[in-house]
Amino acid sequence: MSASPSRSRHGVWLIGARGSVATTVVAGCGALTGGLHPPTGLVTETPVFAGCGLPALSSLVFGGHDTVDCPLPKRAEALAAGGVLPRGLPSAVAAELAAAEAEIRPGGPAPHDERDERELISSFATDVRDFVRRHGLAGAVVVNVASTEPAATGDRLPPSALYAAAALEAGCPYVNFTPSTGLHHPALAATAAASGLPYAGRDGKTGQTLLRSVLGPMFAQRALSVRAWSGTNLLGGGDGSSLADPAAAAAKNAGKERVLADTLGTTPEGEVHIDDVPALGDWKTAWDHIAFDGFLGARMVLQTIWQGCDSALAAPLVLDLARLTLRAHRVGLSGPLGELGFYFKDPVGEGPSALGEQYAALAGFAARLRAAAEAPTGEPR
Amino acid sequence: MSASPSRSRHGVWLIGARGSVATTVVAGCGALTGGLHPPTGLVTETPVFAGCGLPALSSLVFGGHDTVDCPLPKRAEALAAGGVLPRGLPSAVAAELAAAEAEIRPGGPAPHDERDERELISSFATDVRDFVRRHGLAGAVVVNVASTEPAATGDRLPPSALYAAAALEAGCPYVNFTPSTGLHHPALAATAAASGLPYAGRDGKTGQTLLRSVLGPMFAQRALSVRAWSGTNLLGGGDGSSLADPAAAAAKNAGKERVLADTLGTTPEGEVHIDDVPALGDWKTAWDHIAFDGFLGARMVLQTIWQGCDSALAAPLVLDLARLTLRAHRVGLSGPLGELGFYFKDPVGEGPSALGEQYAALAGFAARLRAAAEAPTGEPR
Amino acid sequence: MSASPSRSRHGVWLIGARGSVATTVVAGCGALTGGLHPPTGLVTETPVFAGCGLPALSSLVFGGHDTVDCPLPKRAEALAAGGVLPRGLPSAVAAELAAAEAEIRPGGPAPHDERDERELISSFATDVRDFVRRHGLAGAVVVNVASTEPAATGDRLPPSALYAAAALEAGCPYVNFTPSTGLHHPALAATAAASGLPYAGRDGKTGQTLLRSVLGPMFAQRALSVRAWSGTNLLGGGDGSSLADPAAAAAKNAGKERVLADTLGTTPEGEVHIDDVPALGDWKTAWDHIAFDGFLGARMVLQTIWQGCDSALAAPLVLDLARLTLRAHRVGLSGPLGELGFYFKDPVGEGPSALGEQYAALAGFAARLRAAAEAPTGEPR
Amino acid sequence: MSASPSRSRHGVWLIGARGSVATTVVAGCGALTGGLHPPTGLVTETPVFAGCGLPALSSLVFGGHDTVDCPLPKRAEALAAGGVLPRGLPSAVAAELAAAEAEIRPGGPAPHDERDERELISSFATDVRDFVRRHGLAGAVVVNVASTEPAATGDRLPPSALYAAAALEAGCPYVNFTPSTGLHHPALAATAAASGLPYAGRDGKTGQTLLRSVLGPMFAQRALSVRAWSGTNLLGGGDGSSLADPAAAAAKNAGKERVLADTLGTTPEGEVHIDDVPALGDWKTAWDHIAFDGFLGARMVLQTIWQGCDSALAAPLVLDLARLTLRAHRVGLSGPLGELGFYFKDPVGEGPSALGEQYAALAGFAARLRAAAEAPTGEPR
Repeated sequence: MSASPSRSRHGVWLIGARGSVATTVVAGCGALTGGLHPPTGLVTETPVFAGCGLPALSSLVFGGHDTVDCPLPKRAEALAAGGVLPRGLPSAVAAELAAAEAEIRPGGPAPHDERDERELISSFATDVRDFVRRHGLAGAVVVNVASTEPAATGDRLPPSALYAAAALEAGCPYVNFTPSTGLHHPALAATAAASGLPYAGRDGKTGQTLLRSVLGPMFAQRALSVRAWSGTNLLGGGDGSSLADPAAAAAKNAGKERVLADTLGTTPEGEVHIDDVPALGDWKTAWDHIAFDGFLGARMVLQTIWQGCDSALAAPLVLDLARLTLRAHRVGLSGPLGELGFYFKDPVGEGPSALGEQYAALAGFAARLRAAAEAPTGEPR
Repeated sequence: MSASPSRSRHGVWLIGARGSVATTVVAGCGALTGGLHPPTGLVTETPVFAGCGLPALSSLVFGGHDTVDCPLPKRAEALAAGGVLPRGLPSAVAAELAAAEAEIRPGGPAPHDERDERELISSFATDVRDFVRRHGLAGAVVVNVASTEPAATGDRLPPSALYAAAALEAGCPYVNFTPSTGLHHPALAATAAASGLPYAGRDGKTGQTLLRSVLGPMFAQRALSVRAWSGTNLLGGGDGSSLADPAAAAAKNAGKERVLADTLGTTPEGEVHIDDVPALGDWKTAWDHIAFDGFLGARMVLQTIWQGCDSALAAPLVLDLARLTLRAHRVGLSGPLGELGFYFKDPVGEGPSALGEQYAALAGFAARLRAAAEAPTGEPR
Repeated sequence: MSASPSRSRHGVWLIGARGSVATTVVAGCGALTGGLHPPTGLVTETPVFAGCGLPALSSLVFGGHDTVDCPLPKRAEALAAGGVLPRGLPSAVAAELAAAEAEIRPGGPAPHDERDERELISSFATDVRDFVRRHGLAGAVVVNVASTEPAATGDRLPPSALYAAAALEAGCPYVNFTPSTGLHHPALAATAAASGLPYAGRDGKTGQTLLRSVLGPMFAQRALSVRAWSGTNLLGGGDGSSLADPAAAAAKNAGKERVLADTLGTTPEGEVHIDDVPALGDWKTAWDHIAFDGFLGARMVLQTIWQGCDSALAAPLVLDLARLTLRAHRVGLSGPLGELGFYFKDPVGEGPSALGEQYAALAGFAARLRAAAEAPTGEPR
Repeated sequence: MSASPSRSRHGVWLIGARGSVATTVVAGCGALTGGLHPPTGLVTETPVFAGCGLPALSSLVFGGHDTVDCPLPKRAEALAAGGVLPRGLPSAVAAELAAAEAEIRPGGPAPHDERDERELISSFATDVRDFVRRHGLAGAVVVNVASTEPAATGDRLPPSALYAAAALEAGCPYVNFTPSTGLHHPALAATAAASGLPYAGRDGKTGQTLLRSVLGPMFAQRALSVRAWSGTNLLGGGDGSSLADPAAAAAKNAGKERVLADTLGTTPEGEVHIDDVPALGDWKTAWDHIAFDGFLGARMVLQTIWQGCDSALAAPLVLDLARLTLRAHRVGLSGPLGELGFYFKDPVGEGPSALGEQYAALAGFAARLRAAAEAPTGEPR
C-alpha cells in the first residue's frame, strides 16, 4: 500500500445530482473544506471517528446522474434565496459547483428511451467508470438522493434499481438514501451478494422518524403504553410533490411505521399524512400526536412539532455515508452494513431500532474501521 | 437464610404519605395486586427484572409521615374526581387505603415544635422501627415524596434531611424522589457512608426532563448544535403552588438544566419557568422550544408539548424504586445506587445522562440482582 | 293567547337520539334545570337573550329517532366513564334520561326495509306528531345530530333528507347540526319554501372551524397574506369512524374550507385530514398550521392545537338552536334563519362569515325576538 | 386650499430611528414605493381606505432621534442577513436609507447629559421643526418605536415622555407604538389637551396580543369559561434584552392582560413570561395555553404557537399609523384617536377590545376621513 488514503481522491456519484440534497452536499462540502462553516451535523467529524482513516472531505470529487437540466450553480442560487444555503455561499463555492456540474450525465430512462434495461445499466456503469478513470480516483460510491419513486410493481426494474445495478457493475459501493427500491429488487439480490461490495440504506432518517427512534424507546423503557401515534408532514419543494403521489407516500410511510413497531413492540393506532405545501419551499413541518396510557390507565399526550430544512438535514448524513462506505470498501467489508442503521428508517442487515443503540453500533463500526486503519500492514482484516 | 423472600413482607415508609403521589402509590399497588389494572409504567414488572428476587407488590406494606390531616381515603376520592385515579378505584381498594392511613404518623417539625433536631430524628426513627416491628417486616425503605422544599440555607437541617437521618438511624435504605436536600446535606455524609445502607435519588424524572434525557442525546449524536432550549411548565395541584416559591423552583430547575448540560456537552441559552395554575388540577403541561442549527447553520426548531398527570407518572417509579432498593439492601449493596440514574434528574453516584444508557445501566443492575438471587447460598455477592 | 310561553312545554325531537351529542343534550338539560351545573356554553342563557321569550330549559321535552339500540341511560354511563359527562350525573338525571328514552322511535330505513321513501317520511312524521300530541306540546323542533352520512348521490333521498321531509310534514321547524343533506336536497326545496316553517343549519361549528372563523378574519383585517392553511383532526368516538369514510369526510371538509375562502377572500394551499383514532374516546384534537406572509414577504407561521370534547361542545349549541328555532316559529318567522350563521360551518341564508359579525347578527336576531315578545298583543309580527 | 394632499410631502419622525422597526419602516416604504413588493400588512392600502386622502407612501420623508450609532444602511444589511429584510433590498433602497440616515439626530439624555428636562424637550422639538422646514413638509408625525423603557417611577419624565412633549411643542401629532410612558405622564396631560393635536397609542398589537384579541371574544361569545391563560414569549433581538428587565416586561405584560380582562370579562389564572433568547435573532415565538371549561365543566385546552418577525409585523402598522395620524391632523381631529384601538394593546380613548369591533371602528374612522376628503371646501368637518 503505497498511496496514503489522505492523498487519494474519492468519487461520490449522486443519483439525482441536480436536486436540493445533492446541491447542498456539493456546496456544503466546499464550504467545509474552505473553512467557511463548522461541520455541524457531520457525525464523521466528531471524535468518535478520529483515526478511522476516513477519506478527507477535501478528497471528495462529485458527479452523478440526473434527468433534469437546471445546472447546479443555478439550483444553489435558488436554495440560497430560499434560506437553505447561506447567502453568498453559491458564489463562494462557484468552482466546486461548476466542477460537479461538469460531471453530471443524463439519467434515465428518458421518455421514449429505446434502450432496454441491460443497455441502461451498462450505460450508467460506463458513466461512473469514466468518472473514476478520468479523475484517477481511488474509488467511488454511488448514492441515491433522487426523488422517491412509486413502489415498484411488476417485473420491470424501476430506475432506482437500474442505477443500483450499475453501481455493482462499476464495482462501487452503494447507498440508498431514499425509500425507492434500489438494491432491494429481488432480481439484484444474487448479483449484490456475489459482488463483494458493501452497501447501505434505506431511506435517510432526517426528521419525524429520527424523533420517533428516540421517543419510541423512551415509552418502551418506561413501560408506558402507547395507544395511538398520529402524524402529519407538510413538505414544500420537490419532495412534497413527489410524495403527494400516494404510491410514493406509501413507500415512505412504511419506513416510518416500522420504526414504531420495532421500538414499541406493538403497532399503535394512527395514520401518517404527507402533504405537498409548495408555500413552505424547502422547509418541512412534522407534527406528531402520541396518546399514551400511564399508571392505572391515566391518559396522557405528547405532541412534537419539528420544523426543519430537509436538504440541510440530509446533506451531512450523505457526506457521512459516502465517507463511511468508501472506507468500508477500502478495508474490505462487504454486504449490508447493518451498523449504519443510525442513518436509516429501514436499515439493511441486522441491528437495533432505538437511536441510542444504533449510535452505539455506529461507534462499534468506527472501532472496526480504526482497527483496520491501525493494522500493521494497512490491510483490511 | 430460612425465610424465602416471597413470603416476607416489606415496608414502604413514605414521607408525604397523604400527598397525591403517595395516595396513588398505595391505591395503585392495591389495584395491581387485585388484578384490576395492568402494571403500566412499572419497569420492575417487565421481563428485564424476571428472576431478580424483587419483593412482590403484594408483599408491600405502606406507612409514613405527613404534616397534613386529610386522610388517604378522602384524598383518593379527590384524585378520582380529578381523573387521576380511575372511577371506583378508591372504594375497590378501601381496605388498602385504610391500612396505610392507620400507619401514618405526624411529621414535623410542627409550628412551635419544641423538639430539637436530634429529638425529631429520633422520634421519626422510632416511628419507622415500630412500623417494622409491629408488622414483622423483613425490612423497610424510606421514600421521600413530599412537596419540594426551598433550597436549604444555613446550618439547620431542613425537614427532608431530618427524615433521611431517621432512615439511617432506623437502618433503612432511603430514596429521595424530590429535589429536596434529603441525604445530600453535608452533615449527613459521614453517617450515610458508615451506615452500610444503599440509597438512591434525587428528583424523579417524570416529564419534561424525561424527554430532555432522550432529546439531548439525539442532538448530540447527530452533531446538531442546540442554541437555545426554553421551557415552561404549568402545574396545578400542590406541586404547582410549592414550586411557585422561587427557591423551590430553583432547586427543581437545577436538575433540569443539568440534564441538558450533561447530554449536550454545552449549556444552551434559555430559561425554564414553573407556573402554578390551579385550574389544571393534578395535571401538568410542559412546553419546550429547542432552537438548533443544522448543516451550514440552517436554523431549525423542535417543540414538544407534554400533557400528563404527575402522580400517575411518579407512582410506578416509586414502586419500582422501593422494590429495587429493598432488594439491593437485602443482597448487601450499600452507598449510592448510581445504576438507578434512569429514574432521576440528578442521580447520586456515577452514571450516564442519556436515558438509553441509563436503561442499559438499569438492565445491568437487574443482572447483578439476578446473580445474587441465583447464588447457591442465597447470600449477596 | 291564554297559555303563557313559560307554562307551555316544547318538544325537541333528535335524529340520532341515542348518540353522544343527544345524550349530552338530554343529560345536560336535566343538570342545568336541576341547578347542578352553570350554563357554560349556552349563549341563550347570556344577557343578550334576556326578555326574548325563549322557551325555558325546564319546558323542553325530548324524543327522537335512532337506529341503534343502546338505551340513553347506558350511553350516559359510558360517557361519564369517558369523562364527557361528570361522574354521578347519569344517576342524578336518571329520570330525565328514562323519560327521553321512552320517546325514542326506530329510525330508518333499516336494512331490508321495504317501505318506500313516501312511507318512511310519513311514518317518521307520525312519530313526531304523536309525540307532540301525547305531551300536549306547544310545538316541537326536529334537530339532526346523527352521524355524518356520505354525500348524497343519485335521485334517492338520503336518510337525513327523509327526516327533514318528515319535519316539514309534521309542521315542525328543522335544524341540521350535521353536514348531511337534510333539507338541502333539491327535491325538498319547494316543499320547504311552501311550508312557512323556519329552518337552520348546516354543520355545527364546534372546534377547528370555530377557530378558523376568528383567525381568518384576523389575517384579512391585518392584510396579511395566508399562503397555506393545513389541518389534521384526530377524532375518537363514533364521529371518527363515520368520518373515516372519505365521502363523509368530504362533506365535512367542504364546510371547513368554505369558511377560509369566505373570510380570507382567497383559497390558500393546504389540506384537511380527519383521522379515526378510537383511543381518543369522545375527545378530539385538531392541529392547524397556517403559513402566512407579512410585510416584504416575511414568512411567518401560526399553529393552533384544539383539544376538546365534541359532545360537550355541540350540546349547548343544540339547546340554543332548539330554543331559538322554537321561538322563531312561535313568532312567525319562516324560511332560512341566516342570523344563526354563528352556529354553523355552512349557514343557510345570507350572512357574514366572520364570527364577530355573526355574533352581531345573532344579537340582532335576539332584538327581533325581543321586540316580538314585547309586542302588546303577544302576537308574532 | 391650493395644494392637493398628493403633492405635499409629509414627515415621519421616528424615536428609535436606527432600530429594527424603524429600519424596516424606511426600507419597506422604499420597497413599496419602488414597486418591489406588494403592500402586505398595510391596512391603509386596502379598499377600506380608498378615497380617504391619506398621504401617499411616496410622499413620506423619514428622520428621527436615536442614541445608538450604527447607521441605517448597515442595520438594514444586518436585518437582511437575519432574514427580516429580503436579500438585496438594502442595496435596492440604498438611497432611501441614506436619506433617512442623514436626518437622524442624537437622542437623549446621554450619560452625563447636563441639560435639564426643559432643555432636552426644546432641543428635540427644534430638531423636528428643522426637519419640517428644511424639507418643506406639509406636516410631520412623531412615532415612538424605541425599545421599551422601564415603568416610570418618581417625578422625573422618562425619555419617552420628553420626546412626546417635544412632539407637542413642535406641533406634531404623536403615536406611541411602545408600552413606554410617552404622553401618558400626568405632567403632560394638560399640555396635550390644550395642544389641539391628535395622538394615538399605546403598544402596537403585533403577535400574541393580536391573537388574544380575537380568541378572547370567541370564548366570551360562545359562553365558554376560560379558567387559565398562560403564555411564554421567546424574543431575540434588542426587544428580548430590553424586556428581560422585569420592569420593562411588567409594562408590556400589563397591556397583554388588559386585553384578556376586557374581552373575557374576567381575569383568568396564568402568567406571561418574556424570555430573552438571542439565538432567535429578530424572530419571536409566542406560546399560549388556554384552559377552558365547556358544557357541564368539560375541561378543554387551546394552544397557539405564533412564530413571527417582530419588525415585519410592526413596520406596516407604523406606516398605517403615520398616514392615519397625519391625515387626522390635517382634517382637524384632535385628542386621543380611540378609533385606532385596532393597532394597540392599550388604546387611548374609548373603544372596544375585540379585534372585529376595533376593525369596524377603524372602518368608521376611514369613513370620517373620506367624508372630510369629499367635503366641498376640502376643509375638515
